[in-house]
Amino acid sequence: MLPVLVRLRGFQKLTTIEEAKKLFFNSLKIGHRKTEKVPVWSALNRVLAEDLIAEEDLPRFDRSAVDGYAVKAEDTFGASQFKPKTLKLTNASELKRGEAKQVWTGNPLPKGSDAVLMLENVKLIGDDSIEIWTAVTPGENVSRRGEDIAKGEVAVKTGTRLKPHHLCLISALGKSEVLVFKKPKVAVLATGNELVEVGEKPREDQIYEANRIMLASLCHELGAEPIDLGIAKDDVEEISEKLKHGLEKADAVITTGGTSVGASDLVPTAINRLGKPEILIHGIAMRPAMPTALAIVNDKPVVVLSGNPVAAFFGFEIFARPLILKMLGIENEPRPVVTARLTRRTSTALGRKTFVRVHVFQKNGEFYAEPISARGSGIISTLTRANGYVAVPENREGLEEGETVQVHLFDTLEVFGEDV
Amino acid sequence: MLPVLVRLRGFQKLTTIEEAKKLFFNSLKIGHRKTEKVPVWSALNRVLAEDLIAEEDLPRFDRSAVDGYAVKAEDTFGASQFKPKTLKLTNASELKRGEAKQVWTGNPLPKGSDAVLMLENVKLIGDDSIEIWTAVTPGENVSRRGEDIAKGEVAVKTGTRLKPHHLCLISALGKSEVLVFKKPKVAVLATGNELVEVGEKPREDQIYEANRIMLASLCHELGAEPIDLGIAKDDVEEISEKLKHGLEKADAVITTGGTSVGASDLVPTAINRLGKPEILIHGIAMRPAMPTALAIVNDKPVVVLSGNPVAAFFGFEIFARPLILKMLGIENEPRPVVTARLTRRTSTALGRKTFVRVHVFQKNGEFYAEPISARGSGIISTLTRANGYVAVPENREGLEEGETVQVHLFDTLEVFGEDV
Repeated sequence: MLPVLVRLRGFQKLTTIEEAKKLFFNSLKIGHRKTEKVPVWSALNRVLAEDLIAEEDLPRFDRSAVDGYAVKAEDTFGASQFKPKTLKLTNASELKRGEAKQVWTGNPLPKGSDAVLMLENVKLIGDDSIEIWTAVTPGENVSRRGEDIAKGEVAVKTGTRLKPHHLCLISALGKSEVLVFKKPKVAVLATGNELVEVGEKPREDQIYEANRIMLASLCHELGAEPIDLGIAKDDVEEISEKLKHGLEKADAVITTGGTSVGASDLVPTAINRLGKPEILIHGIAMRPAMPTALAIVNDKPVVVLSGNPVAAFFGFEIFARPLILKMLGIENEPRPVVTARLTRRTSTALGRKTFVRVHVFQKNGEFYAEPISARGSGIISTLTRANGYVAVPENREGLEEGETVQVHLFDTLEVFGEDV
Repeated sequence: MLPVLVRLRGFQKLTTIEEAKKLFFNSLKIGHRKTEKVPVWSALNRVLAEDLIAEEDLPRFDRSAVDGYAVKAEDTFGASQFKPKTLKLTNASELKRGEAKQVWTGNPLPKGSDAVLMLENVKLIGDDSIEIWTAVTPGENVSRRGEDIAKGEVAVKTGTRLKPHHLCLISALGKSEVLVFKKPKVAVLATGNELVEVGEKPREDQIYEANRIMLASLCHELGAEPIDLGIAKDDVEEISEKLKHGLEKADAVITTGGTSVGASDLVPTAINRLGKPEILIHGIAMRPAMPTALAIVNDKPVVVLSGNPVAAFFGFEIFARPLILKMLGIENEPRPVVTARLTRRTSTALGRKTFVRVHVFQKNGEFYAEPISARGSGIISTLTRANGYVAVPENREGLEEGETVQVHLFDTLEVFGEDV
């Protein structure tokens, strides 16, 4: 806890991110995760729920790693440009001494052969012989049976998010189905009298609700299944009813709006009405997203985010993202990080971990991070003009111009004039 | 071109990646891209096909950026802890001199007010007055109408891949639909007598076909729509037939297998049979993926990849990936890059751009890249044990231990003990 000198905006105390995460995740029993078998062709980005063990060797046989001629290595010993040797071509399935057989990359090695001479190191003499001037050692240019993955070996570990190259390996092992964790269902609710649905006509004092689509999309990107609970008015009854519905249908609930300690601070109140409620933490020593709350209701996690879009984004990033990853069976999946130099000074609040939005770009082979000026966490374009953020520790009052920072990327890196 | 001293494995010459890309993309007419309107709720990861212009100001009105009291700033001038001022509370829609009205974050500013005093800087006196001891300047704690995006401004540029925060901004502007580029269709064909479908029983000398799922998944990840053309035997007729079908149904075709300059080098032959064929390049000065070929058939691009999975991966990475991005309307979307120190020496071939697979991890705040030993491009586990690659230039014979390298990430970064 940070007991002193922190502007609390009505909160009795602020909890650090680290303490909040510890308390939240220690209190949360993520039980036995449900699994399902899916075809490998539907498994992209799913999370493997078992160690995938090779049932046979890969490759399934010794095979040529090049285009050329399979030989007995000892037949090539002593061959040189000054003293070439001649081998007899064969089409038989087994090589005898002094014989060679043409093979292409990937072909099984004929019986009796143990090495391959590369095409360009061989001269065809007539139809039935080759002249060679390089020696090969046993195993040279051969991909050994089981060299890639041996039978019984773990090919892909449990908890791996399956990317294209994993699906390639799994298919090469002959598997057509994989056991994956079921997608966690995450319900998303927005609250606020000021909100109207996009497509409707807002009154003069109303705004379009825009956080649900962001939060649902973030869930979707991580591999969870978002459930839309719509908009609730600033009414404890209505919020409770929708939360209850969400808790029944989903594995976790995320709300946005109604979390500040004001008259419309209704979500925490609504949560306290439901079953065995527990608001564990309310008020985090971070900026933006200070009014974030974390709750557990009947063993299901509820992440209560601010209605400010940028605060909702960072509240999700810091709390909902690791939550969803845990529910998916992934312990560690950080966003990509790039080391960059800050283009100018930026000031931050002492006592809060501050998330400075930056635009990272590459110039002359160096990465630079340009801080995006922001006045308040309601300015959505501070996110769309950025592609990453820097987390500034609580004990810093800012970052200096030219300082080296680690940027967490949430959008594409800008690279100019790169040839790869 | 690299005319000398390069092991050509049957190719007359090798073309550098840069020259190959220039020739290929200059020869290719990517015409007017087709567009479609989609609901914003279906637009995640789609590419915007028009500059999205704000039709109204965002925010739509001056609003409070904090919880507190809307005031006329001049009424607060001179207030201090030694000389507090008192303001009269009102519920009227317009403020008169000496009045204040309670507002919550996001509320419209009442008429006549131009600043907001934060809740914690105010003391309630009875029911109808507040005592204040800080002055605010006009505009303080106010989010001005149009401050985020002004009416008429470009909110999101054409060619932007729509991420969750873009969808938030678009929704906040009241848009329920967006114009995006249609997904390019990419047909994927594998060739080779040695291949059987996963799920079938292979003969002793056969292997499971595993490249199509990787290539189709890579297409899918980029936002293209893969079309599976299955497996063709090593037969020019059959390959031609399937290629023709693919060229009819898709905007581009990717093949894997049958590209080496050997007896089974049938894909280039098949391509030469179709319509106005042009194999532009065959044989690239890169490793792996040297036998990659690039062709254009009736204005449609064909990327001809090796049958070796790792070579297919890098051939896709270097040629098919930028092709698909161009077809999608994206000029520049590099993979994330991380700067790391090489844990040990690795040797590469002079005259080829070499793609060294590495496993990047973070230790004590530093990133390290461990090269994955590889013997040939058939070893799929060199990809699954890696999370990125380093591109080593043609004029280097290797990388030194401790050397700083830029790693292109194709899988998750491993970060230990990070608190964010």
